[in-house]
Amino acid sequence: MGSFADGVVVCFVISALVLLASCAELGLGTRIVDNGHILMKTSCSSFFYNSQVNNLQGWLEVPEECEGMVAHYMNHGQYDVDADGVVTAMADYLSDVVPQGDGMDVVIFDIDETALSNLPYYQRHRYGCERFVHAIFSEWVEEGIAPVIASVLRLYKELQAGKWGVILMTGRTERQRNITTQNLLAAGYDSWTSLILRSPEDEGTPAAAYKIKKRLELQEKGYRIWASLGDQWSDLTGPAAGNRTFKLPNPMYYIA
Amino acid sequence: MGSFADGVVVCFVISALVLLASCAELGLGTRIVDNGHILMKTSCSSFFYNSQVNNLQGWLEVPEECEGMVAHYMNHGQYDVDADGVVTAMADYLSDVVPQGDGMDVVIFDIDETALSNLPYYQRHRYGCERFVHAIFSEWVEEGIAPVIASVLRLYKELQAGKWGVILMTGRTERQRNITTQNLLAAGYDSWTSLILRSPEDEGTPAAAYKIKKRLELQEKGYRIWASLGDQWSDLTGPAAGNRTFKLPNPMYYIA
Repeated sequence: MGSFADGVVVCFVISALVLLASCAELGLGTRIVDNGHILMKTSCSSFFYNSQVNNLQGWLEVPEECEGMVAHYMNHGQYDVDADGVVTAMADYLSDVVPQGDGMDVVIFDIDETALSNLPYYQRHRYGCERFVHAIFSEWVEEGIAPVIASVLRLYKELQAGKWGVILMTGRTERQRNITTQNLLAAGYDSWTSLILRSPEDEGTPAAAYKIKKRLELQEKGYRIWASLGDQWSDLTGPAAGNRTFKLPNPMYYIA
Repeated sequence: MGSFADGVVVCFVISALVLLASCAELGLGTRIVDNGHILMKTSCSSFFYNSQVNNLQGWLEVPEECEGMVAHYMNHGQYDVDADGVVTAMADYLSDVVPQGDGMDVVIFDIDETALSNLPYYQRHRYGCERFVHAIFSEWVEEGIAPVIASVLRLYKELQAGKWGVILMTGRTERQRNITTQNLLAAGYDSWTSLILRSPEDEGTPAAAYKIKKRLELQEKGYRIWASLGDQWSDLTGPAAGNRTFKLPNPMYYIA
């Protein structure tokens, strides 16, 4: 005992255990839930890929086994790097367009997981492994303390400096207008062209249909919508979303 | 020298070098090219994310630094796991639909990087880090030896057994009909409802517009298109792509 060889053996055993723990955290070998029933056995990175490109729709929870992967993605820098990449791609596209300066050239930003982050909420609710409960989430919204997504705020300021109008469009309701305004201001956003929330008559409408309706109303008012930024495909699909759309990552929840 | 402690130290140095090499292969710290100019400094996994969700368009080459990441993704199982996830999601969606049995309920499959894989070609051309040269790629197509993507063939057979029609629609030209047919048959595909290639008049048309035109023609003939499967967003966007679309991963090239 105590030889050079023993030291190497002990160290390699430790390294192997660390590697095994890493693989467990990455959630290799898991199942994906679509519309509430078990869909497939595959890895969590496949869940991530398929959810982000909109192949998986209607999923109600992140698979149990993927909590560690999602937590790692959101907390250890990759989310920030990817979000920064999205924002840079959008800035690059818009840099080739010159707004006419009449205030009618606009882009649309979603709010939750776009302008503001609900990560503190999801950190307390197992990163989407818990089924969404509207009433509990609303309590969090009413606190008005959702932090900024820094790269999105940076783009917002750059666009305003470049004579772009930014319209904020959210699935939040008119009842949440005051707290949402307060939260946006505290996070650093101001001087938006418009803040569009769900009116009582829109509350039964799925997000995608509600957003299409609101975008078409903007077009009728003469706004030229060049691009949309959001974390859900329901922010980005259908008419009047702009020439280009930019999808931020969100492996924590799905909105139709 | 030669003590237990020395052994531990030597082993940890080796482990650290292995870890560094892995990170280098994952390509942390790189740049992304959009429309030919340098777009951003970020990691290769951000390039992967942003290219797959269609935030990056018009890119002509995989960033040099990402060759290792793309090679690793394509060759070491993650591509296969993700492709299998796509196919399973599509099978799951279609399992809720009952074809009428008149042969008019169809899905559309793309060919390159969908029914067939050009990975052997891209392995010889630095996984997309080399700019695409049409004439060289055509030589490869003329060999007619592109291998099958196994999970896609499995889905194809399952759909045919379930009375679905499968229409193959490709950006390849009519001049390549014979070799493409031969390659598809050798790979295990048969009895397709239709094989649609670019006619001479469509050769100047971008892929998305060409495919929209062809899908609308299919609708006019009475086909009910339920879903589309492809590796490019130009296979999946615009009218008549179906109620759902399914995007296979392809970090090697972009087609508008």
